[in-house]
Amino acid sequence: MLINEDDFLRDLLPKLATDGNIVVPPGDDCAVLSWNDERYLLLTVDQVAEGVHYHGESAAAPDPAYWVGRKLLARNISDIAAMGGTPSYGLLAISMRKDASRQWLDGFTQGILDLAAAYYIKIVGGDTSAAMANVASLTLLGRVHREQICLRSRARPGDRIFVTGTFGGSLVTGKHLRFEPRLQEAQWLATHGFTSAMIDVSDGLLVDLTRLCRASNVTAVVMEDAIPRTMVDGIAVSLSAAMVDGEDYELIFAASQHRATDLAAQWPFATKLTDIGHIQEPNDESLAVDGDGIDLMSKFGSGYDHFRE
Amino acid sequence: MLINEDDFLRDLLPKLATDGNIVVPPGDDCAVLSWNDERYLLLTVDQVAEGVHYHGESAAAPDPAYWVGRKLLARNISDIAAMGGTPSYGLLAISMRKDASRQWLDGFTQGILDLAAAYYIKIVGGDTSAAMANVASLTLLGRVHREQICLRSRARPGDRIFVTGTFGGSLVTGKHLRFEPRLQEAQWLATHGFTSAMIDVSDGLLVDLTRLCRASNVTAVVMEDAIPRTMVDGIAVSLSAAMVDGEDYELIFAASQHRATDLAAQWPFATKLTDIGHIQEPNDESLAVDGDGIDLMSKFGSGYDHFRE
Repeated sequence: MLINEDDFLRDLLPKLATDGNIVVPPGDDCAVLSWNDERYLLLTVDQVAEGVHYHGESAAAPDPAYWVGRKLLARNISDIAAMGGTPSYGLLAISMRKDASRQWLDGFTQGILDLAAAYYIKIVGGDTSAAMANVASLTLLGRVHREQICLRSRARPGDRIFVTGTFGGSLVTGKHLRFEPRLQEAQWLATHGFTSAMIDVSDGLLVDLTRLCRASNVTAVVMEDAIPRTMVDGIAVSLSAAMVDGEDYELIFAASQHRATDLAAQWPFATKLTDIGHIQEPNDESLAVDGDGIDLMSKFGSGYDHFRE
Repeated sequence: MLINEDDFLRDLLPKLATDGNIVVPPGDDCAVLSWNDERYLLLTVDQVAEGVHYHGESAAAPDPAYWVGRKLLARNISDIAAMGGTPSYGLLAISMRKDASRQWLDGFTQGILDLAAAYYIKIVGGDTSAAMANVASLTLLGRVHREQICLRSRARPGDRIFVTGTFGGSLVTGKHLRFEPRLQEAQWLATHGFTSAMIDVSDGLLVDLTRLCRASNVTAVVMEDAIPRTMVDGIAVSLSAAMVDGEDYELIFAASQHRATDLAAQWPFATKLTDIGHIQEPNDESLAVDGDGIDLMSKFGSGYDHFRE
């Protein structure tokens, strides 16, 4: 029987012990621990597995090792960004098949090290192992000022919903491998107080938007026509692709109505910023609806399950 | 071409950037970061891979999932112990084949959670993924008072060399899976100031002893007859097995000559404590020698390579 990730986590999370230093229980983009009077410590871990997240050396069209390594760290940075934090230190665990090449391994680690250098992240430890398949995990630490932390649970009725960048087609465009994590944008939003409710989009705009809504106990009303779609060969991807494709690594965040105009006026980045709708009181039946009140999950499907894809 | 772990790390470690908060560069049992004026933050990561560290569900004699999970955390605890520290928070990354069972996964996580509870460790985050093989990694945080930290690099000529427990045969006895990490013993040693030079034995007594010596720039003189050997079916394992078998998860530490008698007299644990030799000035040719000055590496071989076994 295939394992369902959501079922597994639903059963596991309540078993996890807690204590007074754990500020946010498991389930957000990062774990949050007390650090000192001013700051929280952020912790996140991500994995890349051959044949799942990338095509390995033996595939017909292998993904470049350098970009696979870079992606692993970039996904972690995106998680820290979504909390409004700054990444700092990483630990790298590498499991490799016995026939893996040193060339691949060197490319993979260089991709990590170059992106780490660009973001002032230090790799401080790790582990290497043989395995039956290539899998690597990277644990990233970060820090955030207590008053600037962004949580999935803080969207409020009346807030506008904004997104960075464009959505859909990340596999065909290669964005899934070469994306730039929205760290600068997220830090600007958090330090200027424009949002305290944010999530990064790894599993698809719709899935991650509903996660934000579930954690905040609210419902999102989405203007479908406003959703920024990625262009592929000069043509915008379908609305469905923009909703569910995943691996965009953009940000979704909620901003209070009265600051939305300031936000749009002051946004200092080339990165596209789009208002895609608003938050309302929870609806018993839907976490996200279109302008006609139709449930978006039933319209577009629920995206993917890490244990299956 | 097979990848050699030592070669890979020798090339990688100099490329890692550093900063003023990194107290101990990568290469010890844990990474060490500044935490506050009193304490350091310890960070370590370990992996378990099916077919390498354990026999999976489909093997003729599968290892129980519960004990595989417990082992993963126990290895991490052993790393924190070797620094004189106290483990605190963990992050778990699980990659599983699509045909892996929920029963196996539940057993695996329960083994982790039970040992975590016994040591007051909280699992605060994680990641799940599909993969071509089962691999899991666990990152463990810990803390240590600045004056109590134990490093591989602090053995000094004249010190006595002590070990806990017995060595060899860990695979046949099942100790490799069911060992109790020597956390209490290590904390007692660190808090009572009996040692500041310690390492845990994961890759074999000889390999890990030479790591301690290399980091300290000293040579160990080992009394081979004193080495405590594990009993298997009433018979002690061979000296060679005790030297190189690995997966004992005992401690090797250096204690100053003038405190060695006090140490033996005050040792409050049922765990066996044995003086196996002493530290002397470095010898250009050997990191560890027997009583006749014969190099122990050439006598017994160098143990194992994580990328091959």
